[in-house]
Amino acid sequence: MVVGADAAGMSAASQARKRRGPDDLRITAFERGRAASYSACGIPYWISGTVGSEAELIARSPEQHRANGIDLRLCTEVTGIDLDRREVQWRSADGSGAEPFDSLVYATGSVPMRPAVPGIDAVGVYGVQVLDDGADVLAALERPGVRRAVVVGGGYIGLEMAEAMKVRGLEVTVVDRSATPISTFDPDVGEFVATAVRGMGIELVLSDGAAAIGTTRGRVDSVITASGRELPADLVVLGLGVRPNVRLAEHAGIPLGTSGGVAVDARMRTGVEGIWSAGDCVESVHRVSGQRVVVALGTHANKQGRVVGINLGGGYSTFPGVIGTAVTKVCDLEVARTGLSEAEAEVAGFSFVTAYVDSTTRAGYFPGAQPVRVKLLAERRSGRLLGGHIVGREGSAKRIDTLATAIWNGMSVDEVLGLDLSYAPPFSPVWDPVLIAARKAFEAVEADTRR
Amino acid sequence: MVVGADAAGMSAASQARKRRGPDDLRITAFERGRAASYSACGIPYWISGTVGSEAELIARSPEQHRANGIDLRLCTEVTGIDLDRREVQWRSADGSGAEPFDSLVYATGSVPMRPAVPGIDAVGVYGVQVLDDGADVLAALERPGVRRAVVVGGGYIGLEMAEAMKVRGLEVTVVDRSATPISTFDPDVGEFVATAVRGMGIELVLSDGAAAIGTTRGRVDSVITASGRELPADLVVLGLGVRPNVRLAEHAGIPLGTSGGVAVDARMRTGVEGIWSAGDCVESVHRVSGQRVVVALGTHANKQGRVVGINLGGGYSTFPGVIGTAVTKVCDLEVARTGLSEAEAEVAGFSFVTAYVDSTTRAGYFPGAQPVRVKLLAERRSGRLLGGHIVGREGSAKRIDTLATAIWNGMSVDEVLGLDLSYAPPFSPVWDPVLIAARKAFEAVEADTRR
Repeated sequence: MVVGADAAGMSAASQARKRRGPDDLRITAFERGRAASYSACGIPYWISGTVGSEAELIARSPEQHRANGIDLRLCTEVTGIDLDRREVQWRSADGSGAEPFDSLVYATGSVPMRPAVPGIDAVGVYGVQVLDDGADVLAALERPGVRRAVVVGGGYIGLEMAEAMKVRGLEVTVVDRSATPISTFDPDVGEFVATAVRGMGIELVLSDGAAAIGTTRGRVDSVITASGRELPADLVVLGLGVRPNVRLAEHAGIPLGTSGGVAVDARMRTGVEGIWSAGDCVESVHRVSGQRVVVALGTHANKQGRVVGINLGGGYSTFPGVIGTAVTKVCDLEVARTGLSEAEAEVAGFSFVTAYVDSTTRAGYFPGAQPVRVKLLAERRSGRLLGGHIVGREGSAKRIDTLATAIWNGMSVDEVLGLDLSYAPPFSPVWDPVLIAARKAFEAVEADTRR
Repeated sequence: MVVGADAAGMSAASQARKRRGPDDLRITAFERGRAASYSACGIPYWISGTVGSEAELIARSPEQHRANGIDLRLCTEVTGIDLDRREVQWRSADGSGAEPFDSLVYATGSVPMRPAVPGIDAVGVYGVQVLDDGADVLAALERPGVRRAVVVGGGYIGLEMAEAMKVRGLEVTVVDRSATPISTFDPDVGEFVATAVRGMGIELVLSDGAAAIGTTRGRVDSVITASGRELPADLVVLGLGVRPNVRLAEHAGIPLGTSGGVAVDARMRTGVEGIWSAGDCVESVHRVSGQRVVVALGTHANKQGRVVGINLGGGYSTFPGVIGTAVTKVCDLEVARTGLSEAEAEVAGFSFVTAYVDSTTRAGYFPGAQPVRVKLLAERRSGRLLGGHIVGREGSAKRIDTLATAIWNGMSVDEVLGLDLSYAPPFSPVWDPVLIAARKAFEAVEADTRR
C-alpha cells in the first residue's frame, strides 16, 4: 500500500515489484492528484514554455505502472490511516471506502508554506506543488488583463516562477524577508542572484515580507508588505518553500522527528512496524552537521523510495543521508551549494574560515570561457571542507558535485587540492577553479592556525 | 636553479620565491625555448585559430618572472648537470658557460615519441611540444600547395592536431596502430571517438602504423603504413604521445624509476640530495593500481612544481599521486576517463565488472539535454570503483571529476549511488547519469557475487 504516488512512492512500488511479483505482493497506490511520477521541479519550465507540455513532465504513465502490476488509484485521496485496523480510508469523486494493508509506504510529499496573512485564501493566489497548480497558473496567465504578478518568497521555486512569468511577458515583483534572495545561499552569493534577477527586469523587494493580500471581491489585487508598500498584483504565487505533509501521519500516530518530518531509521522504517516513509515528508540525517533535516528534493525522494522498495521486497538497503546539495539557474546565472552554509555551520557549532576564487570555466584563453566563483568553508585547524558555493555562467554549477563528493568523504581542503581533476583547455584552466579555491582555503586555514 | 622553465619549473620557482625573498634565495631558470610558462596543451587551438595568438598561451611573461626576482634565461639550453661540482653547463646563441647551484629543480618536461622509421627526419615532419613547433606547423600550413596532412598516432594531441588542421581546410588522415583512437580509452568508448573523427571528414586508418615516411628531395611526400598503404602527405604531424625528457638526468646520474621517469619521493625529491624534479619528466604513484606511471599533463606539472617550491622554500608539502584522469574534446564530442581502463585494471591484477548507462546531461524533457554515456569499472566482490569513462555531448565530460573524487576516496559503487549530487532540470535528470551508472554497476557486482 502506497500513499502518495509521486517520485518516492512509485520508486518504492517499482523496486518492490522488481523483487516480488504480483502473486507474491499486491501493490495499491493512492494519489489524490491526477498524475503519478511527475516532475514537480519541472513546473516552472512548463509555465515559461521551455517545456512544451504537461505530458513531458510525466516520467511514467499510469498505464505503465498498471502494466507493472501496480493498482494505481488517481484522484483518490487518503483521508485517514488506521493503525489498529491496518487500513486506510479513501475518498474519490466516485465515493469512499477503506482498504486493508500489511505494509504501508507513507509518501505524501510536502505542501507549500502559506503565510497566515489576511487575504491568503483569495482567488488568484497560487502555490506551486502539483501539476494542477501549474495548470491553474497557466490558466490565470491567459485571463485578460493579467499583467502583474507578485511572488511571495524568493527561494528556488519563487525565483524560477518569477522568471517563468517574466518570460511570459508579465511585470513581476519578488518579495522576500531576507536581505538576499535564496536565503539558503550565503549572502555574498545571494548578491549575484539578486543582480541576475534584477537584470531580467524583475523587481526585487528584499528585507520585507508579505503582511497582507489585498483583494477586490474575493480576488487578489495587491500584496501589502510589512514595511507598508502596496504592490499591485493580478496574480500572486507563493514561493516560501514547503513543509512536510505529515497531517495523516500525525493523526495516525506515526512518530515525527525533531525537524517536523516523519522520523525514519536508516532503512526508512518509521516508528510503526510495517510503515515506511520516503520523500519530501521524511527527515534525513545531515552528514556534516549531524542534525536531522527535511530536504524536499526529487533526487532524495527517488533514492529513498528505492531504499524502501528494496527493503519491502525482501532486500537490504539504507539511505545514507544528505549534505544539502542544491543547484538552480536564474536567467543565465548558475548557482549551486553543498554542505553547510555559513549560517548553518554556525548553528551546528563549527568554527571555520572561508575563501573564494574568481576564475573561468575553461582555460582563460579559450573561447567561451565563462566567469565562475567558487567559495569554500573549511573548519578551523582541521581544514575539513564543510561547505561550498559555486556561482557563475554556463559550465559552472555542476562542479558542485566534485565538492559534494569531497565533503561526503570528509576531505580536508588540503586533500581536495591534491585531487586529480580533469584538465584540457576547453574544460578548465590548468588549475580547476575548485582546486584554486581549495588552495586558497588551505592557505586561510594555515594563516588562522598560525594566529 | 631551475632547468626547464615551463609549468613545473616556474611553479616551483614562484612558490619558493613566495617563501624566500631574493636576498635569501637566488633563483636562476634555464629554458631552451623562447618562452616560459606557456600552455603546450593550447597549441592545437592556436593552430586551428580557436585561440588567436601565441601570446594568449603564455600564462606569465618573462618580465613578470623577472620582476618576481627570478633570473630567467630563455633560449639557453642546459647541456649537462655536474653533480660533483654542483654546476650546470649551458649554451645559448651568445656562448656557453657553467653556473653553480645549491639546489636544482629538474623540470625538463617530455619529448614527442618519434618512431624509428625511414624518413622520420625529413623536412615537413613535426612533433608538437613547444611553441616553436606550433609556429612551424602554422608556417607549414601557409606554404603554397600544402593541402594533405597525415597525423601519425591518434592520441589526444594527434586528434586535436588533426581537427585543427581540418578546420584550417586540409585533407587530414590519422594513422593509429590501435583498433580505436585514443588507445588509453576503453575500445567501446574509442568507437564513439572514431565516429566523431570520421564525422568531421577526417580519414582514420586504424590497426595500422607508420612504417616509413616517403620523401622527395628530403621533404615528406607520403606516409607508408605497415599494411602497405601509401598516404600522400604534404605535412606529417607526430601524435604518438611523449616520453619523459630524462637525458640530462640519466647522464648526470640522477636515478630513474621503473617507468622511465625521474624517481621522486612524496616531497618530489630525487635520489640525489638537493635535486628535485617535477612535471612531465617525473614518475608518479597511481593511487588505484599502486604502480609508478609517467603522466604528462599540465595540471600535474603545476601541482608538483608547487610542492617542490614549498619544500624548497622551507615548508612542507607532498604530491599525493594520480589516478589517470583525462579529458578531451573531439569536434562536439566530449570524452573523459579516470581511474583504470579495462586494460589497465587487468594488468594491475584486478577482477572487475563493468556497467554503463546512456542518459542525458539535463532532465530528458529539458531543452538542450544532450546524450551522455557513463561507463564504470567496479572491483568484484568489494564493488570498489576502479575506473570510469564518460562520453557525450556538451555538459558531459566534467562529470568525470565526480568519479575521480569518488575513486580518490576508495568509494564503492554502492556508496557512489548514495552521493548527494546536485539536481535541477537544467542540470541533470533526477538521477544524475553518474548515479544511474553506479546503480547499474552495483547491480552487476551483486549479480556477479551471487554467481
